[in-house]
Amino acid sequence: MAFTLSPPPHLLPPKTSRAGPSLFVCHSSSSSSRMGQQPRGSKLMEFPHLLDPHRDTMVSLLSAVESRLGSHLLPSSVPPDVEYYQNESGSSQGTLCVRSGIDSSPVDFILASWLHLEQPTGGGALDITNIAGYLKSSTDVPHFQFELVQCSPTYFILFLDLIPRRDTVRHPDYLKAFYEDTQLEACRQRLAQLPEVQPYFSSSLYFRGVVSPTGILVSIKCEEGGRERVEEIIREHIGPISNEVAGIWMDMCVGEGGGPGGEVREAERAELEKRDSFIKSKAIEMDLSSSLPKQFGQEVADRVLRVIRSVYKT
Amino acid sequence: MAFTLSPPPHLLPPKTSRAGPSLFVCHSSSSSSRMGQQPRGSKLMEFPHLLDPHRDTMVSLLSAVESRLGSHLLPSSVPPDVEYYQNESGSSQGTLCVRSGIDSSPVDFILASWLHLEQPTGGGALDITNIAGYLKSSTDVPHFQFELVQCSPTYFILFLDLIPRRDTVRHPDYLKAFYEDTQLEACRQRLAQLPEVQPYFSSSLYFRGVVSPTGILVSIKCEEGGRERVEEIIREHIGPISNEVAGIWMDMCVGEGGGPGGEVREAERAELEKRDSFIKSKAIEMDLSSSLPKQFGQEVADRVLRVIRSVYKT
Repeated sequence: MAFTLSPPPHLLPPKTSRAGPSLFVCHSSSSSSRMGQQPRGSKLMEFPHLLDPHRDTMVSLLSAVESRLGSHLLPSSVPPDVEYYQNESGSSQGTLCVRSGIDSSPVDFILASWLHLEQPTGGGALDITNIAGYLKSSTDVPHFQFELVQCSPTYFILFLDLIPRRDTVRHPDYLKAFYEDTQLEACRQRLAQLPEVQPYFSSSLYFRGVVSPTGILVSIKCEEGGRERVEEIIREHIGPISNEVAGIWMDMCVGEGGGPGGEVREAERAELEKRDSFIKSKAIEMDLSSSLPKQFGQEVADRVLRVIRSVYKT
Repeated sequence: MAFTLSPPPHLLPPKTSRAGPSLFVCHSSSSSSRMGQQPRGSKLMEFPHLLDPHRDTMVSLLSAVESRLGSHLLPSSVPPDVEYYQNESGSSQGTLCVRSGIDSSPVDFILASWLHLEQPTGGGALDITNIAGYLKSSTDVPHFQFELVQCSPTYFILFLDLIPRRDTVRHPDYLKAFYEDTQLEACRQRLAQLPEVQPYFSSSLYFRGVVSPTGILVSIKCEEGGRERVEEIIREHIGPISNEVAGIWMDMCVGEGGGPGGEVREAERAELEKRDSFIKSKAIEMDLSSSLPKQFGQEVADRVLRVIRSVYKT
């Protein structure tokens, strides 16, 4: 699988509520929020194909983002034929939601998506869910990235990280403020101690360099416990840890006192933007520009990529 | 164990040959070169305490460095009481050899060492061997680092890497030239596929950021096969792979045509030196400045650290 950086596309904005408090997840803060109970027309909110705890993890993360950062975000401006798209036969499907930050916010945009990719070799389907939070160059707080990939009913890959905006070798104070003092390593270790969890090495050397020193990039393989054990691991571990990391990130962005600093002087912004632009363009190049056309055909892929490129400003 | 960066101290220069072609390893290119056959007085060449394949790996690497880079290097100028040192009881021992590059060479210095550290808790001893090759800022070719640590007769840690001199996120061309085009990943993968070999996570987040995307940082645990299997892994895998990585590095430094580039413009050298200085001072701070006094007492530690700091220019 060409799992690389993949702040890829696609998500789930309820078309029925293009503005208001619940742009990501309708009623997600209510415990009665289940996909089947979404208003008609909110196809993008259905999270089809996913195991329950996988869906719950996405809903919970989006709900937390909504509740904490909602006032920072504009409604999604993704056109309907990119909010939801599919290949000719309908066997592969994708969604995309992008909400840009308002002018006064440090948030550049939040991107969320799910993708259901039928494998051409008949090897089942990949189900990918993704939430990325990118910030402006007025702050050097790391970007947020969550991606959970179901490769088979008993095999998952998780990428959960706060992506550094600076070279941590050259800026040990940056590492201390955002990675050491925030105890992110404890999150990584809690997951790593499960016997089913193994470090995952991306095929992209570039991507390996993008990941932070506390980045969680792991495979979860449950040959023995089967689907039940996978569900347990997602529910008991991946969900809570993802929420914790997202919470740490949102504290950095908008916490009282503005988190552990992060304001960037005007003179340094160009350098930060340059580094960010490498990350973004590499992500598109590696993850999307070849795989999307293969999965959805050139026309659909062009449409989706155009939106993503405009958001990423690459 | 406080295994961190550890381009730490210490090595093995034969006092009997302070100049000439075989400063690191007397007669090492001859197959009859065994420690017992070293000339009298070359205590530092004895590699006591090591398993045979561990010793052979060191000898082979030093021999390769000698044969390829010998003409670039000055004799070691380490004072005798730092070439070999021990604690009061003699239970912990260390060695250090440093050979600086001649003016016209891209090599700044080659440092080699072994350390035998008695554990205060009575948990046996650690045996650490180390070879580091640091380059000048006239080139941006990565530094070389080999470290093999015997934690117990059946448990080893290996760190083998070409340490990037630049932020690979910001410089994808650097990554391509020195890591992708050189096929270093194949070396990492060959070792990683052994069931006894697992990724090792340093306790230092800083160090994790120093390691390259193809860096080999692994533990080797042979509970079942015991010492025999450990010896086999070192002989059949660690030795050959270490030699291959060292060969790739030396090709970069002094290969025909000067390797894949690497010449640094005057204006960029200060930045490169700054980044290098962070790596070096962090290495000393994390690895040596606390552990050496504990193991050898303050007086010996000060003596050794003074030499290392002068070499590292920190």
